[in-house]
Order: sequence, then C-alpha cells, then structure tokens
Amino acid sequence: MESPMTVGLPDLMPGQSLARGVARHLLSHDFVTVEELVPTPGLRVDLMALGPKGEVWVIECKSCRADFTTDRKWQGYLDWCDRFFWAVDADFPVDLLPAETGLILADGYDAEIVRMGPEQRLAGARRKAVLQGFARVAARRLQGLRDPGAFSTAVI
Amino acid sequence: MESPMTVGLPDLMPGQSLARGVARHLLSHDFVTVEELVPTPGLRVDLMALGPKGEVWVIECKSCRADFTTDRKWQGYLDWCDRFFWAVDADFPVDLLPAETGLILADGYDAEIVRMGPEQRLAGARRKAVLQGFARVAARRLQGLRDPGAFSTAVI
Repeated sequence: MESPMTVGLPDLMPGQSLARGVARHLLSHDFVTVEELVPTPGLRVDLMALGPKGEVWVIECKSCRADFTTDRKWQGYLDWCDRFFWAVDADFPVDLLPAETGLILADGYDAEIVRMGPEQRLAGARRKAVLQGFARVAARRLQGLRDPGAFSTAVI
Repeated sequence: MESPMTVGLPDLMPGQSLARGVARHLLSHDFVTVEELVPTPGLRVDLMALGPKGEVWVIECKSCRADFTTDRKWQGYLDWCDRFFWAVDADFPVDLLPAETGLILADGYDAEIVRMGPEQRLAGARRKAVLQGFARVAARRLQGLRDPGAFSTAVI
C-alpha cells in the first residue's frame, strides 16, 4: 500500500516534486506559476511565477548538491526576473548557495520562503516579452490538456 | 455507437463547441486562447486570443439568433481587444451581425476567418492589464488541471 505521503507524487522527479510544492505555496501569495519555461533560447527555468502586480520571479529547484554545483547557467536567469530564488529540500546544504539570492525550503506538498531574493526589476520591454511568453506557454499547455486534439489538427 | 463526428464533443454546449473549433483554428495563426475570461468585472468573453506579436482578439460565440439578439453587452467587449469577432456556425443568419465586426465560421472541429474585425489597438496600460489577466487565468487553470490538490492546499 502506498503511504499517504507518497500519494499524488507518482511520476515526479525530485526537482519536479519541489516545483510542485513551491507552486502550491506561491498560490497563497497570489502568485501563479508555469514550470519549465524558456524565456530565451538556451535557458530553461524550472519555475516562473507571476504575481498580482505583475512581479516576475524565477525559482530554480535543486534536489541535491550535485544538481546545484553542475549548474553553469543560473546567473543567466537573473536577467529574466525581478527576483530569483533557489528551492531546495530540508536536507540540502544551504550554505553552498550564494547569499545574494532568494531561498525557499520545499517538499512536494508545500514550501516556505526563507529569504527573499533581492529585487532587480526588469526593464519595460523585457518585462512585456517575458509576460507574453508566460501567457502564451500557459495558454498553449492549458489547451493541450483540455483539448488534446487541437494540436494534431493544427499540424494538418 | 457514436458517430466519428461526435467523438470528442461529449459535454460541450453549442457555444463551447464553437469556441473549441475557433481555438483550434487560431493555433494555425499562432494565436493561443483562453475561454471564458473576465477582463473586467461584469464582462465575460467567450474566447480571448493572444497572437505572436501580442495581438489581443476577442471572439464571441453565438449558437443561434436568440443568443445574439439577447446579448446587450457585446459593445463593451470592443474596449478590451485589438479586434473583435463573432463566431457562428454555417446555419446562423449572418446578415444580423453588424458589418463593422469580424466574422468566423466555425464548428466544433475547425473554423475559418471570413471577415477580419477592424483594428482598434488597446492603449498601453490596458494592454498590459489584459495580458496580465490572460496570463494569470491561463496559468491558474493549467495548475488546476495538472495538480488539483494545489487549490485545496491554498485555501488552508
């Protein structure tokens, strides 16, 4: 029998499980989220969040030390958000993480913002592009789930 | 046995079926869509579409003459989009529709843009608000489908 704690996390990789918990928690701050978003070719962020006033946050989910130390791209993410956060679980050695970044402790069910990332607000044109990309990815995936036939039709 | 033409339209009202066909067709123009969006309290549009350059279209789906003649709000929609369209099926008396509006012929599977609505571009501040509302609704609904447990958690 599955334990109650594993129900609902059947197919998620550790990083995806963290993303789920973070996304759930951010709803309580009225932030909506999209996973695995590509703001520009070559960069894929684990989670992008959009706040009630248009705030754009990026959250990178790291399941273990190696997952963090092999990440050569994270500083590139700073240019695509107003605030940047790491999301890790309770076992992660958080002293590894740069001080000038946000920190979220998470599991698959919930999360807690431990440290806010410093704010570096996006310039207007980039903000508009990011918002538009977020909107288009979210709507396209939503349509894909609601009407899977839509995409085969569009290819024809 | 279901006929092939009814497969995939099990629970849709006539207007929703038109919206599905329009949404499918708009993908071929690289427009993504969200159904039943509320741009401002008191107005609910059947379909809002977001184009590759940020174009905002509103499409109202009318399943029959009465559905159109009882609509007292449609002119209010013009202020929330760059172009406005009606979507109707092949049996609809299209002469009823105002000439200065767009027209899309649709069924549940596809659609065709018969007449473009004239362009009246949104002002910057409203465009930003509309885009943000579109993004937030799409992301929230997407999360609701991917992780239904998220919303009960958020309420706690």
